Amino acid sequence: LEPGDGGAAEGAGAFLRGEVAHIGHAELLTPRPKESLHFFREVMGLEEVASEGRSVFLRGFGDYERYCLKLTESDSSGLGHLALRASSAAALERRVEAIERSGRGVGWIDGDLGHGRAYRFTDPDGRLFEIYYETERYVPQEALRAAMLNQPQRRTGRGVGVRRLEHANFVSPDVRGCRQFLESTLGYRSFEIIELEDGREYGAWLSATVQGHEIIYVLESLPTRGRLHHLAFWVDTREEVLRAADLFQDSGVFIEAGPAKHTPIQSFYLYVYEPGGNRVEVTSGGYLVFDPDPEATTRWLEGRYKNSRAWGRGFPPSFDTYATPPYPGEGD
Amino acid sequence: LEPGDGGAAEGAGAFLRGEVAHIGHAELLTPRPKESLHFFREVMGLEEVASEGRSVFLRGFGDYERYCLKLTESDSSGLGHLALRASSAAALERRVEAIERSGRGVGWIDGDLGHGRAYRFTDPDGRLFEIYYETERYVPQEALRAAMLNQPQRRTGRGVGVRRLEHANFVSPDVRGCRQFLESTLGYRSFEIIELEDGREYGAWLSATVQGHEIIYVLESLPTRGRLHHLAFWVDTREEVLRAADLFQDSGVFIEAGPAKHTPIQSFYLYVYEPGGNRVEVTSGGYLVFDPDPEATTRWLEGRYKNSRAWGRGFPPSFDTYATPPYPGEGD
Amino acid sequence: LEPGDGGAAEGAGAFLRGEVAHIGHAELLTPRPKESLHFFREVMGLEEVASEGRSVFLRGFGDYERYCLKLTESDSSGLGHLALRASSAAALERRVEAIERSGRGVGWIDGDLGHGRAYRFTDPDGRLFEIYYETERYVPQEALRAAMLNQPQRRTGRGVGVRRLEHANFVSPDVRGCRQFLESTLGYRSFEIIELEDGREYGAWLSATVQGHEIIYVLESLPTRGRLHHLAFWVDTREEVLRAADLFQDSGVFIEAGPAKHTPIQSFYLYVYEPGGNRVEVTSGGYLVFDPDPEATTRWLEGRYKNSRAWGRGFPPSFDTYATPPYPGEGD
Amino acid sequence: LEPGDGGAAEGAGAFLRGEVAHIGHAELLTPRPKESLHFFREVMGLEEVASEGRSVFLRGFGDYERYCLKLTESDSSGLGHLALRASSAAALERRVEAIERSGRGVGWIDGDLGHGRAYRFTDPDGRLFEIYYETERYVPQEALRAAMLNQPQRRTGRGVGVRRLEHANFVSPDVRGCRQFLESTLGYRSFEIIELEDGREYGAWLSATVQGHEIIYVLESLPTRGRLHHLAFWVDTREEVLRAADLFQDSGVFIEAGPAKHTPIQSFYLYVYEPGGNRVEVTSGGYLVFDPDPEATTRWLEGRYKNSRAWGRGFPPSFDTYATPPYPGEGD
Repeated sequence: LEPGDGGAAEGAGAFLRGEVAHIGHAELLTPRPKESLHFFREVMGLEEVASEGRSVFLRGFGDYERYCLKLTESDSSGLGHLALRASSAAALERRVEAIERSGRGVGWIDGDLGHGRAYRFTDPDGRLFEIYYETERYVPQEALRAAMLNQPQRRTGRGVGVRRLEHANFVSPDVRGCRQFLESTLGYRSFEIIELEDGREYGAWLSATVQGHEIIYVLESLPTRGRLHHLAFWVDTREEVLRAADLFQDSGVFIEAGPAKHTPIQSFYLYVYEPGGNRVEVTSGGYLVFDPDPEATTRWLEGRYKNSRAWGRGFPPSFDTYATPPYPGEGD
Repeated sequence: LEPGDGGAAEGAGAFLRGEVAHIGHAELLTPRPKESLHFFREVMGLEEVASEGRSVFLRGFGDYERYCLKLTESDSSGLGHLALRASSAAALERRVEAIERSGRGVGWIDGDLGHGRAYRFTDPDGRLFEIYYETERYVPQEALRAAMLNQPQRRTGRGVGVRRLEHANFVSPDVRGCRQFLESTLGYRSFEIIELEDGREYGAWLSATVQGHEIIYVLESLPTRGRLHHLAFWVDTREEVLRAADLFQDSGVFIEAGPAKHTPIQSFYLYVYEPGGNRVEVTSGGYLVFDPDPEATTRWLEGRYKNSRAWGRGFPPSFDTYATPPYPGEGD
Repeated sequence: LEPGDGGAAEGAGAFLRGEVAHIGHAELLTPRPKESLHFFREVMGLEEVASEGRSVFLRGFGDYERYCLKLTESDSSGLGHLALRASSAAALERRVEAIERSGRGVGWIDGDLGHGRAYRFTDPDGRLFEIYYETERYVPQEALRAAMLNQPQRRTGRGVGVRRLEHANFVSPDVRGCRQFLESTLGYRSFEIIELEDGREYGAWLSATVQGHEIIYVLESLPTRGRLHHLAFWVDTREEVLRAADLFQDSGVFIEAGPAKHTPIQSFYLYVYEPGGNRVEVTSGGYLVFDPDPEATTRWLEGRYKNSRAWGRGFPPSFDTYATPPYPGEGD
Repeated sequence: LEPGDGGAAEGAGAFLRGEVAHIGHAELLTPRPKESLHFFREVMGLEEVASEGRSVFLRGFGDYERYCLKLTESDSSGLGHLALRASSAAALERRVEAIERSGRGVGWIDGDLGHGRAYRFTDPDGRLFEIYYETERYVPQEALRAAMLNQPQRRTGRGVGVRRLEHANFVSPDVRGCRQFLESTLGYRSFEIIELEDGREYGAWLSATVQGHEIIYVLESLPTRGRLHHLAFWVDTREEVLRAADLFQDSGVFIEAGPAKHTPIQSFYLYVYEPGGNRVEVTSGGYLVFDPDPEATTRWLEGRYKNSRAWGRGFPPSFDTYATPPYPGEGD
């Protein structure tokens, strides 16, 4: 029995589960590094833990690792890379082997601030991922020490005060291909899939745990690939999402949609654009999927989905087209 | 028909209502001015608007006047004075006349930062009050301007983020006497009264509007008079009270009681001690009393009250004895 | 000095305040009485207290009077009448005198279930109002008795569970005329007024207390008058509004807008259509106006209003046109 | 490589994870079946799905299986059994093999309403567990169908409205022994452990997923074993816990503690006694543990734990002694 081979004895999905522990961090590119940093630190309430070259590293108060966001100055906006943490050193080896077999491997790097060696690969869109196991556990300075032992950091009460990076949402011309790649090589599981009338997939919500999503793919509407729809940061309550909306408005941050309830995953959302142009979500809630069976995947057909949207609400047109880096002519 | 005379034609209470608009601000004394200022500004999230002599003036984001808290360095803790705003210049004259008739008048002062001439008087405990009408409306600097025209100031997202001073709670050996003084001279109305088996009043919750309380008297348990039980600051939601509890704990602020629900008024509470020793409440909710009739007053007998406390919960012993300034030997 | 004459000595608004205590109840017309009753009782969670002829009387758990909603079978939807409670017998007489002077008086009726004699009048649109003072205080049956003495009724935990009727919103071709009528004859006060570029008023939010609104007028877009935009029922928290949205969706109730935040009054809203076609709001929050001065009125110009809407969100087109009874061709 | 053997290659804990999917249901014994059923159905808002012999089966609105609670008439209160669902048929076989090796196996049963064959075993206290894989997916009747495809059942809006059974808390004279048994045979993981000065464990919080707890053991204070501290049911928000407290009080249900915040797991709690005498918790929130490493376990020493309790609050004495079935003389 060799886990990396697919675990024929009990079904590939079941066996692979648990190989990837969680998303570790995202690297976000910004052409306006100073303003973006102000947004993430002062408005979102993340803590700056280090800076290196053109990058600043920031953490939510609930991160056990050092950071969840690497903010990097760049010519344009969009995703730098998404880093996943494997569940063990052995799981890392198995995942790398599977990735290499898929032909999407890029190669090892020595690591980055806060984590050890990592293997680079791309999804079918060419989007850059990294997977690593060795990590540095966050040790707060005195001023950021929490009152309780089971919390890695105190709450500072500054701005929105997000706990952690919750998920990344990517736009792709090939949702099905990307979804199946993450399922077969990494053990991700799809909690919801929306299929269009023409048979293409419109969206897939994937998770490495019982929580509703970590990585989402939705259909790209423009002739491009590899773009970022948004990064989502977690707060513990819907009330904190509502509070965030007030703070964003008073801070002059553009609110695109929400606060409201998502249909897939049933989470509570609020979308804004950070100064670098990237869409950022503040999110909370959503159901957990304890069910280990394939039947747990909700498969929507387009019509049924559109007719039963949560609270009867859709999105503004920009939500379906805007992504980063912006398409020529978009977001001007 | 002369309002100040009591309005016999329709009952004194009904007629007097509306003479006092609301509590304007409280002056709080602190032997640790620097630490107290840090608490109110950084943890509670008030804005400093001015300082003068030994006093610093602070505001909640919802205050239409310049401030709601005057924090004054002093040898001990406790209340400096409580200032009430009359509903009109004429109402001010009528109230002063009624106070003078009661024999509790002290005299006029020229005013203070942010408001015009004020009349000083004391309640039966000798506690200092002021009543004024002329006031300065707050005009925010650019950095504190709200996105919406109907808000006097933006939310800064710093700390607890209280909206305004909501009520003051005083301990008194003569709850009934104090209550009746505020009712007869100022038109305050009691929404709830708790009476002990021995006929004394244990507590009275008084309001100048439909909102549950502005001034509360509860029975003093020690041989002293004139003490402050607490000042209460308002947040809009119970969730913000819960959030405040987390912030207080991580900030090393002592939490005495709550978050939980009060029986009288049914509001949600959280009690802490600010560094100067004064008890401070963060509060939200509670019912409104639209009913104009005397029957609207809830009159509890001690036994019934104790047997139906909200969520079956009482208070720690300190809640019944500690007040500021501390009684010799207390709070050491 | 005669209150009903306008109180020139201190300004009409200031003096009149307190003459009307609150809105007592609304009569809502429905062509589908059975389905509407099911909606209000099972989904909204009101209690049925009595039925008489073609009407059923329902109460929120926080009503000190017997009911807040009179649901009456009718050929069409819309408002039957809105009933206001005066603050005292004398205030009732004064208000009737002022109404008669305005020429909008209709005459006295003997009363209705739960309240004594009432004076009928119409607003400039011809909409029917009643004002009364004598009322019957609600005494719950054993099964509906609250655990605590200061609550008129227990919470049943059924459906949305609204506390009380909070406000009525009327559409009018003459917002300014209706507003000024309520101000001058009843002492209502406008907390917010929105004025269009052409000088007409688009909306006015009026209150008899410190709470943000009781009666609202917004501009009628169709060639008719006297229509109802909606009745709003109060819940204590925004979370209950969010919960209501889930219950409405699972109950098959059409959600038109929300949950979201209003710009005027800053309250939290959710709009649905009850089976009889009337729009119903579930609402919570909003600021209180303690400021007694005329400057407390927020005066929006159309442009400023549109550019600073709460959370950047507008309403669906139906919100600006649909009202009850429906205009020919509307709502089919 | 044989999972059931402990997975020496990568550490037993890491490898076993994912073998048990979740707790499926609990059987609760009650000497007052009619009143207990009324409590769970009308106050907690569970749905009755079937009854068989002396048992009634009830579900939360979020259960994908048919039920989460089997309520069984009995001479006394306490736990009947706790049933766990394995992640796959193969995982079930592996777990049974490991249990049998531990010497704590009892044997197979044919199944029960809603699930297939199950293997019975006991924890070191002699408490009855079952583990099964085959299950029946819930299909709602028309009246209970949810508006959205990704929800197994609509919300009914009745009472507290719990989503699912969240955890079971057991009192044991041997917390360490019970904890290690669940870890080594079932792959449970301890998120928090509290150790007394004398070296005994006071409490252990175990989970089969990233969510904070499914099974908890706390120290038994009386000379008995096998008792139930409480069953906890989940609601999605802290506000629903607060709402539950109001409903419980108005329904005459005894509230023992809360609503407040737990120190371990940081969840929000509310404890009541159901009519049969069993303690029931309504809970929400708490942190998720994505960290796959052993360092993720928070190990409290008694002193540190007591000095940093959430919001500075302890429990009433009954919380440390009362469990079901009651000890002779207890709970009378």
